[in-house]
Amino acid sequence: MNSNKNQWIYVAPGIWKLILGNPNEVTPLSLLQNKPSLEGLNRMGDEEFPAAAYQLDSIINQKQTLLTLPLTESENIYGLGLQFMRMNHRGYTRVLRVNSDPRQDTGETHAPVPFYISSEGYGLLINTCRIVTMYCGSTVRKDSTLEPKIRDRSTDSDWQATPTSDQLEIVIPHEQGIEIYLFAGPNMLNVVRRYNLFCGGGALPPRWGLGFWHRVSIFFDEAKAIEEAIEFRKRELPCDVFGLEPGWHSNSYPTSYEWSDQRFPDPQKFVSAMKDLGFRLNLWENPYVAPIARIYESLKPFAGSHTVWGGLAPDYSLEEAQRILIKQHEADHLDIGISGYKIDECDGSELTGASWMFPAHATFPSGLDGEQMRQVYGLLLQKMTTEMFHVRNQRTYGLVRASSTGAASFPYVLYSDLYDHRQFVRALCNASFSGLLWTPELRETDTDEDFVRRLQTVCFSPLAMLNAWASGVKPWNYGETEPIVRKYLELRMQLMPYLYSAFARYHFDGTPPFRAMELEMGTELNCRQAHEMNLDQQNSTLTEFDSHEAAYGKRITSDMDDQYMMGDSLLIAPLFAGESSRKVVLPIGDWFDFESGECFEGGRSIKVQAGLDKIPVFVRNGGIVPLMPVRLNAPAAGEEVSIEIRHYGKAAGEFLLFDDDGETYNYEQGEYQWRILSVSEESQGRTTHVSLAEDNKPSSYKDFTWNFY
Amino acid sequence: MNSNKNQWIYVAPGIWKLILGNPNEVTPLSLLQNKPSLEGLNRMGDEEFPAAAYQLDSIINQKQTLLTLPLTESENIYGLGLQFMRMNHRGYTRVLRVNSDPRQDTGETHAPVPFYISSEGYGLLINTCRIVTMYCGSTVRKDSTLEPKIRDRSTDSDWQATPTSDQLEIVIPHEQGIEIYLFAGPNMLNVVRRYNLFCGGGALPPRWGLGFWHRVSIFFDEAKAIEEAIEFRKRELPCDVFGLEPGWHSNSYPTSYEWSDQRFPDPQKFVSAMKDLGFRLNLWENPYVAPIARIYESLKPFAGSHTVWGGLAPDYSLEEAQRILIKQHEADHLDIGISGYKIDECDGSELTGASWMFPAHATFPSGLDGEQMRQVYGLLLQKMTTEMFHVRNQRTYGLVRASSTGAASFPYVLYSDLYDHRQFVRALCNASFSGLLWTPELRETDTDEDFVRRLQTVCFSPLAMLNAWASGVKPWNYGETEPIVRKYLELRMQLMPYLYSAFARYHFDGTPPFRAMELEMGTELNCRQAHEMNLDQQNSTLTEFDSHEAAYGKRITSDMDDQYMMGDSLLIAPLFAGESSRKVVLPIGDWFDFESGECFEGGRSIKVQAGLDKIPVFVRNGGIVPLMPVRLNAPAAGEEVSIEIRHYGKAAGEFLLFDDDGETYNYEQGEYQWRILSVSEESQGRTTHVSLAEDNKPSSYKDFTWNFY
Repeated sequence: MNSNKNQWIYVAPGIWKLILGNPNEVTPLSLLQNKPSLEGLNRMGDEEFPAAAYQLDSIINQKQTLLTLPLTESENIYGLGLQFMRMNHRGYTRVLRVNSDPRQDTGETHAPVPFYISSEGYGLLINTCRIVTMYCGSTVRKDSTLEPKIRDRSTDSDWQATPTSDQLEIVIPHEQGIEIYLFAGPNMLNVVRRYNLFCGGGALPPRWGLGFWHRVSIFFDEAKAIEEAIEFRKRELPCDVFGLEPGWHSNSYPTSYEWSDQRFPDPQKFVSAMKDLGFRLNLWENPYVAPIARIYESLKPFAGSHTVWGGLAPDYSLEEAQRILIKQHEADHLDIGISGYKIDECDGSELTGASWMFPAHATFPSGLDGEQMRQVYGLLLQKMTTEMFHVRNQRTYGLVRASSTGAASFPYVLYSDLYDHRQFVRALCNASFSGLLWTPELRETDTDEDFVRRLQTVCFSPLAMLNAWASGVKPWNYGETEPIVRKYLELRMQLMPYLYSAFARYHFDGTPPFRAMELEMGTELNCRQAHEMNLDQQNSTLTEFDSHEAAYGKRITSDMDDQYMMGDSLLIAPLFAGESSRKVVLPIGDWFDFESGECFEGGRSIKVQAGLDKIPVFVRNGGIVPLMPVRLNAPAAGEEVSIEIRHYGKAAGEFLLFDDDGETYNYEQGEYQWRILSVSEESQGRTTHVSLAEDNKPSSYKDFTWNFY
Repeated sequence: MNSNKNQWIYVAPGIWKLILGNPNEVTPLSLLQNKPSLEGLNRMGDEEFPAAAYQLDSIINQKQTLLTLPLTESENIYGLGLQFMRMNHRGYTRVLRVNSDPRQDTGETHAPVPFYISSEGYGLLINTCRIVTMYCGSTVRKDSTLEPKIRDRSTDSDWQATPTSDQLEIVIPHEQGIEIYLFAGPNMLNVVRRYNLFCGGGALPPRWGLGFWHRVSIFFDEAKAIEEAIEFRKRELPCDVFGLEPGWHSNSYPTSYEWSDQRFPDPQKFVSAMKDLGFRLNLWENPYVAPIARIYESLKPFAGSHTVWGGLAPDYSLEEAQRILIKQHEADHLDIGISGYKIDECDGSELTGASWMFPAHATFPSGLDGEQMRQVYGLLLQKMTTEMFHVRNQRTYGLVRASSTGAASFPYVLYSDLYDHRQFVRALCNASFSGLLWTPELRETDTDEDFVRRLQTVCFSPLAMLNAWASGVKPWNYGETEPIVRKYLELRMQLMPYLYSAFARYHFDGTPPFRAMELEMGTELNCRQAHEMNLDQQNSTLTEFDSHEAAYGKRITSDMDDQYMMGDSLLIAPLFAGESSRKVVLPIGDWFDFESGECFEGGRSIKVQAGLDKIPVFVRNGGIVPLMPVRLNAPAAGEEVSIEIRHYGKAAGEFLLFDDDGETYNYEQGEYQWRILSVSEESQGRTTHVSLAEDNKPSSYKDFTWNFY
């Protein structure tokens, strides 16, 4: 063991780096070349070095680098990327491998991130392109300091399949050294904020990205897409973006990136027509280049040893490969007004009927192998396409199916072919630990109820979208539900000033716009206690053997993984099909129903009833929520909208309303402003205040009116 | 690529070895030290070197050893151990990792074996303790010789998620070299026979091992076990072995290997009482040694770095560790008459609620790491316990939950906590490719019908057992079904001379007693054609997108994985709950219903009806089946039983009836004989013949009577 004398290097306030052995020079951070947001980090200030990290031990051998860190008995481990199955990983082994079929609780996912946040108030990032395995207290050493609690499984109902461990073990395979980053708290939110700022600050989408999105059937041609766009307008349903699925290509799977002559004979005209109807266009693509693509031959020398669906897998760690793709994309897509991409299939699968991806032993011209490339493919594609828009001073917002370390600043939202609503909400919570955005996207459903419940969730997410690629489903296809559908599409639009400001905080302060309850500052313990008190009084260990399904007993999880925060003030508690009520954990303080203003006492869990037309949303005492009028589209650059400001409860409150042109990167040159909306405490005679707009800064808001709940 | 000039070394008739690079000296074969059955291999004779192996290429780097072999377009790949999900692995990536929760179609299983059998008529064994990944035509290289068939997934229903590949790639991680064994055919059965003989010949269980087994509840004590044994005898139900589950230990999970004072105060007396009732005893155990065990302290220096459930994981590659365990087992178990073991939990799991096993980075005193040890733990435990009985000249038969390369000669049968009847039958087929035995063991069921259908299957398997560990279920617990249950327990006993002879063929000739249809010599192609013709006319590729469950389309498999051969003449076609009829593929020639003698034309698939009291069993034309009378126990050494010989159809036939004492290893010194039962063709005047018993050889059979069907 190489312990104690580790040479931690100061990186920025509250961030340190450690280099052990001889790390691989190619890492996610070396590939991404993120520029940490030093301004934001300096604002956060210095913090004490987390003592646990002094106890980091390492063993390096030919096979791997092994790290060991201490765990206290009550310590919880969060993060590790876009996890669908679990929030607290304490006691579990997590294999952090990119995988498009994360159907088991193993840690594999579209976007694994070897960055954990400890409830002890620190975070650790393993900067590697390898598939890291984290044993989060799932292993016990013979020389453990904890006296083993030996129990007889046959007779003792407290027997545990995984005994309590005093250590977290981390294996980085194939490497003889590693670079590690340490993030101080003291609370978990600050760990996450430092990580996001270290990655360059969170993504700030264009305003239109926060409008409603609709993806049409793969079989659609120009005429059908325009017909459907007109139908949206006829019905006066908000929608900013149409997404085209594979069928727009002359060949998909593998992919040409060129328009289909048959279905889209005049793309320029089509894009203009859609623009006139108020729709931006987002193009589906995948990374595997078809032999019929014009760029195929020039990309071939820069592609990996193995093909996918017969297409090349280009090595986008090479500038030569990037240049070829970017040139083609600029000419065929960006120059005619395409707003962004959905980058599909960059994760890979080995499951039945769908085994596809270059293998881990594939080789790439840069020297990366298939294991490394698969772990970072989604990152490289995000970086390349983000920069392609950035040089035009144009913001994009899109979808991507794989991501990993250091992605916080990319304007891409993760999605999945999985379709479990509860898992989708859990992923929304978990994404917030790892600098990721996630959309619990809506597709077709078996019932009207399920459609509405999923729609409600997606309207309180980073990207509100109906994805009809396979089904051709439309928002008005579910019988009597259209008024409810309209209500949430409209509410999504109204909330744009609030949500856009939350994203600006993500960018400038690192605070995730959607957050797990565990990140609610100062209330973690109370929330957890309330939640645990309200768990059904099931035994957490086995009482009866089930030889078919749970031979080792089932654990009852106490994760708060079905509710989350949007921005500073809104607590979202989705309902799932089949439910008409649910339990909601309210942090300490008074909370108010978003619609009715009804008051609930927090610091406990409550049961709420909600008909199909309602998703329970609570506002904290003193919460301020700026709303704009219902519109079909996001405000364009230079356009002004009136603002209704709601204030809830009797406490004083303040809201930072962000403003810029909403479309360009001019904010990087200081072309933005924060408007302060504030209310003093009622007991001191409630007064409201809206700070004046700065001169010579973009200004989109006017006619502020206050409403009190 | 290091090709063409590979130096294949002749090992035995039809078997060659290749050493590439610097292989790890510790391999499954080096640990097991199997003695190939040269007698059997010489009887099979020489065979041409399989030409495909000349094209084996390899690349060795710091990370791994990579092998490449050619695939023809129609080539199928079988084997790879106890696979539940699939028979033909062509087009799939298989990760051959030991895992107790093989719930996905990835290749992981309790008993993966890096040995594949090609339909081109050869087999290849990768002799390594590492987790081999086999890309069985699931990867395509950029420089593939096959012209890629590029199709548009959106519009072309022939699009495939995994395009056809011309190569099989094999990755052995962490190794800079490898030892490979090549087995010639020319047909697949001979490949398998050579492999089994190379491993020392198949296991020959004691006769009593082929009787009926019953495992009692973990909560049972002496009195309850004896009470249940008496009930079996009262009801006159055949049963040879009672299995005790964890509760017999003073501590289980981890395990003491010592009798519980409370439940089993006088084990010697208990074993005697059970023996008097006609029951042998099999003891459940797991490998993890509890601190309260007498042997704990002496094993501690020989155990791995990590504990499991707080117990030691001893390094049984070390003789010191073996000696400690064996000495204790001999004194506490064997000396009082215990007949064998069920070695549980030697596979490991990372799934929810059940994460337990030493990690891959664990270290062991011998120098093996956790990855290697987990891959061979089941093998080491089988070897150690088999030898423990062998030195007493006493045969054992037991259960084990992990196995791998080279296990054919161990008298252990695999089982699982999975419980899918169709998967269980598929595993029975697949085990035959890899020198493994498998029991589709019966536990409690939701319905009477399911109980009977599973019972019928298990009675035509290597180990016929009801496992009541969790439920306490008894064979007479399913309402009106007791007469059917009795029928199959009795039939199991009657078939013992036939089945025991099939096992002797396994031992001496390498022919698996239970065989996949693909191993039926000379009929493979016809069977496959018949089977494929009869597949429902579903499209093998996607017709409609299902965005929830099958976004990449579903493949229809054409595996013959729901019927199998038992011995030379019996074709078993289990029914599954909910079915009253099924399709059966009959190889070329006439086939006869086992019970009624009804004749069916083969070379095609037929539909058979069968009520709950019947499992469809067919006998080939000329098939000879020796039966003994219904008995409650297998014949003891020296005991004689009368034999009914059934002959089916009109063709000539011959059966080799094996005989020895049925309990010891004296057969290794030639103390056995084969009796020839033969019938000449009816058209030439049917005559029957039973060869005379040899003098001075064990003889168990008398009073032969013939019956013709």
